[in-house]
Amino acid sequence: MHVVLSGGVGAARFLKGLVRVVPPEEIIAVVNVADDLWLHGLRICPDLDSITYHLAGVVDPQRQWGRGGESDVVASELERFGAPRWFTLGDRDLATHLHRTERLGAGLPLSSVTEEVTAAFGVDVRLLPATDDEVTTRVHTADGRDLHFQEYWVRERGEPTVSRVELDGGAAAAPAPGVVEALLDADSVLLAPSNPVVSIDTIRAIPGIDAALRQTPAPIVGVSPIVGGAVVRGMADRLLPSVGAEVSALGVARHYGDLLDGWVVDRRDAQASAAVRDELGIECRVTDTMMDDPEVAGALAGTVLELADGLRR
Amino acid sequence: MHVVLSGGVGAARFLKGLVRVVPPEEIIAVVNVADDLWLHGLRICPDLDSITYHLAGVVDPQRQWGRGGESDVVASELERFGAPRWFTLGDRDLATHLHRTERLGAGLPLSSVTEEVTAAFGVDVRLLPATDDEVTTRVHTADGRDLHFQEYWVRERGEPTVSRVELDGGAAAAPAPGVVEALLDADSVLLAPSNPVVSIDTIRAIPGIDAALRQTPAPIVGVSPIVGGAVVRGMADRLLPSVGAEVSALGVARHYGDLLDGWVVDRRDAQASAAVRDELGIECRVTDTMMDDPEVAGALAGTVLELADGLRR
Repeated sequence: MHVVLSGGVGAARFLKGLVRVVPPEEIIAVVNVADDLWLHGLRICPDLDSITYHLAGVVDPQRQWGRGGESDVVASELERFGAPRWFTLGDRDLATHLHRTERLGAGLPLSSVTEEVTAAFGVDVRLLPATDDEVTTRVHTADGRDLHFQEYWVRERGEPTVSRVELDGGAAAAPAPGVVEALLDADSVLLAPSNPVVSIDTIRAIPGIDAALRQTPAPIVGVSPIVGGAVVRGMADRLLPSVGAEVSALGVARHYGDLLDGWVVDRRDAQASAAVRDELGIECRVTDTMMDDPEVAGALAGTVLELADGLRR
Repeated sequence: MHVVLSGGVGAARFLKGLVRVVPPEEIIAVVNVADDLWLHGLRICPDLDSITYHLAGVVDPQRQWGRGGESDVVASELERFGAPRWFTLGDRDLATHLHRTERLGAGLPLSSVTEEVTAAFGVDVRLLPATDDEVTTRVHTADGRDLHFQEYWVRERGEPTVSRVELDGGAAAAPAPGVVEALLDADSVLLAPSNPVVSIDTIRAIPGIDAALRQTPAPIVGVSPIVGGAVVRGMADRLLPSVGAEVSALGVARHYGDLLDGWVVDRRDAQASAAVRDELGIECRVTDTMMDDPEVAGALAGTVLELADGLRR
């Protein structure tokens, strides 16, 4: 079994590549839920949904998140009630949130609801939320505000300078059923090219998960989300400095440190591979990591798995 | 102040007529909530919404309920999750339910949420739910089933033979704030041409409301929902027998009995007026009650108010 620590779009595209090289039934995505939010009384899980929609082939091809062929009748109507419009909520997408919210309200844990949602979309990769508990990334800004991650990123377009990121609810949270077991039993553990600070670290911060990562006999191989010193998408470049990390393929590898057994960087960062090997003592591969083309995503996944295979103890 | 005991479409059309003859600020509709239901985790209040949409001029002109220019993207998508489709849920309409459910979840009583909803639609008539408590009309069928009113009426198209109707939660419910006061202070109390059994009686059954109706000095004048021995719309013809009432303009007047000071029947039921006067000792007016034309609704409202005026003690 291959277990992929996953954020949103970067992870979704990587997983879409991975299913080209291994059967979906052999993949478990452990997914960040610290971006999740309550809006209009609905529970919205952007990373779980992005991955589901990508794997189901129903994602909006332009935005790379949300549903394709989307409309926004409900959101437009909600303006009548003074509802904010900064968070896009398409009509099709809303059905997912409605179902999820109803089922959570009926007492099901998020992990069980996620099983229902992926089944409804015919997704065979197993998606496990990192935790069934509510955890939230809070972004503390240099001007003294304490924002929900989505307020920082979507409403404020990631513009405020970030002084500190905190995982609210993290200390009291527990891994969702199956997460620790999956990590301990894995053939390989892969870190998707997701935001290290607000996607991967927020999974690792759930008590018990990092210990399982330290304990697992499986090789841990990551893909750099930084290419040529810049983010492919998202705001990792703005958040890495808040944890003292350099915005580079090497900087992220240093950030993960001895968690890693292998690291995969883009061709543009080939020069980093020597430092990754020499300084960090980690195996490094250089390949094309820009997954605009599904074939590139498949080839990248192949390279990552091959590296992991070679590292298996 | 004119207080109108109200069900759904019949009441909505009557109120639409009433605002042609008196300022909306002088009208309070006390609205049945026993048809309300939970669906997909949302609280749906068909009668409150029908009245709101009619008065706001946004109702679907064909169906006479729901929003005009409606789409059903969300409901179609919900099928993916195995959601039943027997209860129509339009996208525009859904925004109302989402807002209401979110606000109820935040702890507001239905009466306060209803104020927000009517304000959002620019409706100046004051809508008071009969109660802020959850009450439900249960329909017991001859074949031994116990159905939610909407299951009976919408899902089963009113086909099962009804043996008994029951107001679940009725005994423990309290009138919403302002209801009893409105009835006691009213200049006139009007019974809209709504279903006597599942719209008007379900309001009267909230403890304290019938007593206020008995106690109010205001004249109580009703409009027959039965025209020429048939319902104008709905299923009163199928429910009146379950309470031992005849399906006729006279039968409904008898059902309300000495609650009434005045009764208004359609021209087709002119022959009933003598019996209403002689047998029940109630003033009766004969006029056009088919409100397909808003002018007819206005004229009907004028006749009702004139009768009430004459009956004022």
